[in-house]
Amino acid sequence: MTERLVSTIAQIRPLDRDVMAQAQTRQNQLTKPRGSLGRLEELSIQIAGIKRSRLPVLKDKVIITMAADHGVCAEGVSAYPQVVTQQMVLNFLDGGAGINVLARHIGARVIVVDMGVLEGLKPHPELICNTIDFGTKNMTQGPAMTRQQAVDTIEAGITLVENEIKMGLDIVGTGDMGIGNTTAASAVCAAITGSPVADVTGHGTGIDDEQLACKVSIIERALSVNQPDPNDAIDILAKVGGFEIGGLVGVILAATANSIPVVIDGFISGAAALIAHKLSPQVKDYLIAAHMSTEPGHRLMLEYLGLAPILDLQMRLGEGTGAALGISIAEAAVKVLKEMATFGEAGVSDKD
Amino acid sequence: MTERLVSTIAQIRPLDRDVMAQAQTRQNQLTKPRGSLGRLEELSIQIAGIKRSRLPVLKDKVIITMAADHGVCAEGVSAYPQVVTQQMVLNFLDGGAGINVLARHIGARVIVVDMGVLEGLKPHPELICNTIDFGTKNMTQGPAMTRQQAVDTIEAGITLVENEIKMGLDIVGTGDMGIGNTTAASAVCAAITGSPVADVTGHGTGIDDEQLACKVSIIERALSVNQPDPNDAIDILAKVGGFEIGGLVGVILAATANSIPVVIDGFISGAAALIAHKLSPQVKDYLIAAHMSTEPGHRLMLEYLGLAPILDLQMRLGEGTGAALGISIAEAAVKVLKEMATFGEAGVSDKD
Repeated sequence: MTERLVSTIAQIRPLDRDVMAQAQTRQNQLTKPRGSLGRLEELSIQIAGIKRSRLPVLKDKVIITMAADHGVCAEGVSAYPQVVTQQMVLNFLDGGAGINVLARHIGARVIVVDMGVLEGLKPHPELICNTIDFGTKNMTQGPAMTRQQAVDTIEAGITLVENEIKMGLDIVGTGDMGIGNTTAASAVCAAITGSPVADVTGHGTGIDDEQLACKVSIIERALSVNQPDPNDAIDILAKVGGFEIGGLVGVILAATANSIPVVIDGFISGAAALIAHKLSPQVKDYLIAAHMSTEPGHRLMLEYLGLAPILDLQMRLGEGTGAALGISIAEAAVKVLKEMATFGEAGVSDKD
Repeated sequence: MTERLVSTIAQIRPLDRDVMAQAQTRQNQLTKPRGSLGRLEELSIQIAGIKRSRLPVLKDKVIITMAADHGVCAEGVSAYPQVVTQQMVLNFLDGGAGINVLARHIGARVIVVDMGVLEGLKPHPELICNTIDFGTKNMTQGPAMTRQQAVDTIEAGITLVENEIKMGLDIVGTGDMGIGNTTAASAVCAAITGSPVADVTGHGTGIDDEQLACKVSIIERALSVNQPDPNDAIDILAKVGGFEIGGLVGVILAATANSIPVVIDGFISGAAALIAHKLSPQVKDYLIAAHMSTEPGHRLMLEYLGLAPILDLQMRLGEGTGAALGISIAEAAVKVLKEMATFGEAGVSDKD
């Protein structure tokens, strides 16, 4: 690992338990039966502990949607042509994609990042270009990327978040775009959790059962050819990951290191979370699982990480769409903590 | 039933299937794999069918929170003193309760209605007074209210919603406040679904297991004393219901009759939905179940109604807090339908 990566990881602290106890005390004084706002109360306390603030505010909400292409598409793993990755990036920049609509709904910004889309994209004032390469290599024939590239993806994510923090970032959601990236995420999931490939591989954008069987054998082949070291997160990222997955690892690490809550989206973001967790298990305390994706491996990822998803809306789009809705619930939670009246303030009789 | 009630129920129409088919077609053209936004897609199509509009808009969002007291509190069914009902109404009017915070978060108005709080409340410019009586009678000793009062509660809800519709109501959420009202809701649930009282009775605001056993026997006694007719919804409401439950029945019927989606909150709102559904099974198509409450009877209610909750956040506060979060998801759903670009508009290649 580079010095930069080591120092970022070294910055990650335990949550502030004193602040969390204060937030819990306040929750118990608010005009409602104790615990009656369930997950909202838990989330508010977690976020207080993350942000080291008794009454945290989530004002500057950002979803970072990272895009890249995947060489493994040559094996026919996706229902969509690979050109869709760059077409969707343009759609993000035009504001017409699902993530744009949901981010507007919750009052968040979307930051679109090219981590390595095929052919590259024309410069656009709102596109951040961190092109590592024009798509990964086909992982059935060798590593998807070099170890240096894997580190570069993570550092690109760290740099991006550190810049956002300077501008006041309060909470970050992760998002992805990349035709073929459920294949990479399944491979990462199998490598880290040790689950059979068939258990962590799903229909992605919409392949049929026959194509799914092929996808499983392609992932098994990639793991067999590359033999990623289950104890070396960067080796796993390099051999069977993706540039956008690596970028999101950096997002998670930098946010965590700087006391910013991270709302993770679905299956691809989950793969990034697994890698970040492997690098520093403490990131878990800073993660909020937005939703349960219908990709079957996602459940296993969340169980492995010990995270309970906020939502289960049968979604599987990615882009950060689940994260957007999750951020809105997180914001609701901290508003409850800050804005509700206490029994004393409102002159309401408490239970005892 | 009165002529008013009969004519309101007669207005309820099937959903507009043509519009729903158009909305489904549009969902399939939007730049995402088909079905990948899961419940959001389903909700958008349901709301299109309810509002008879291919691209519905949810601008004027209202939560109607109805409060009343319950004579059965004399039996000691609640962890809180009965005065909390009126104290919480004042808290609603001051903006300090959970529902105020969550309604502000989603950009909804809260309409606070006194349906029959003990002692009455001082006039307040934002309080709607529909006082039926100063609390219901103790239902272990006879009917909670007269049949005429039960009809009056429903008609009060109808009038309120009809006025809101004149002012542009787009979607309504139901909410409640009333110490002792989980006891009434459990009794209604047992009477309509035929489930054993012990299966539909929970800890409410936070009674212990011993008190819960008492609560079950009190509800059994109320049902035994009153013998509500399981096929007569108004008889059930009168004998073991509550004024706020009846008011919410009227809210549901009037909204349904006027093509307005109704987002139902938790256990108390669920009791109102059961009664409304008994009066007109077609209301089911207009209902959106916001969340799964931790009150055990709520799951049975939703199963009986055939509704799948949007959220499961382990909440049990009532007031309309679950409905508020559910409305925000519903609004996200219709925005996806309206605002996302199609494959053609965005120049994105489709699957085939």
